[in-house]
Amino acid sequence: MQYLLQVDFPHNGPFGDELTTAMSELAKDIATESGLISKLWTENESEKEAGGIYLFNNLEDAERYLKKHTDRLTSFGYENIRGKIFLVNEALSKLSLPKH
Amino acid sequence: MQYLLQVDFPHNGPFGDELTTAMSELAKDIATESGLISKLWTENESEKEAGGIYLFNNLEDAERYLKKHTDRLTSFGYENIRGKIFLVNEALSKLSLPKH
Repeated sequence: MQYLLQVDFPHNGPFGDELTTAMSELAKDIATESGLISKLWTENESEKEAGGIYLFNNLEDAERYLKKHTDRLTSFGYENIRGKIFLVNEALSKLSLPKH
Repeated sequence: MQYLLQVDFPHNGPFGDELTTAMSELAKDIATESGLISKLWTENESEKEAGGIYLFNNLEDAERYLKKHTDRLTSFGYENIRGKIFLVNEALSKLSLPKH
């Protein structure tokens, strides 16, 4: 079973290459999280939002990380952090893979 | 550039295998969408929510599909459909890949 953690929050910058520079060490640290399969870092400069889409191989680690990350973002000064955990329907996801 | 479309909405079921059966034809049709790289189908039975996380290879197709899918979900009777489009920060996402 794969569990998807969806996080987003208002973010005034930096974006793009500046975000990469600012967050590189945190990104490397996140790679060591127990149960993590992948994290996609997301950003929207025009909407002033950012977030992350995570896959975990178990629910407990997804829940543990959501609490840890929400606390960290709050300590950075972020507010209105939205976090949701879903089960991935792997059968439907496979059917939706383009054939090319 | 990869664009991530994040969609979620209140959903009273079906879930799991019953969702797979109900949505298989739609899932196959979504595989043919222009610009689509992948869709992860998401569901949370306890929170009564469902959604999808899509990757597109261009912004225009992500925006076009969000409107199309929102209209389709509305026609199915869904309400409070939340859709957000983000740019993927590929450099940070690569740094967060576990090394195992």
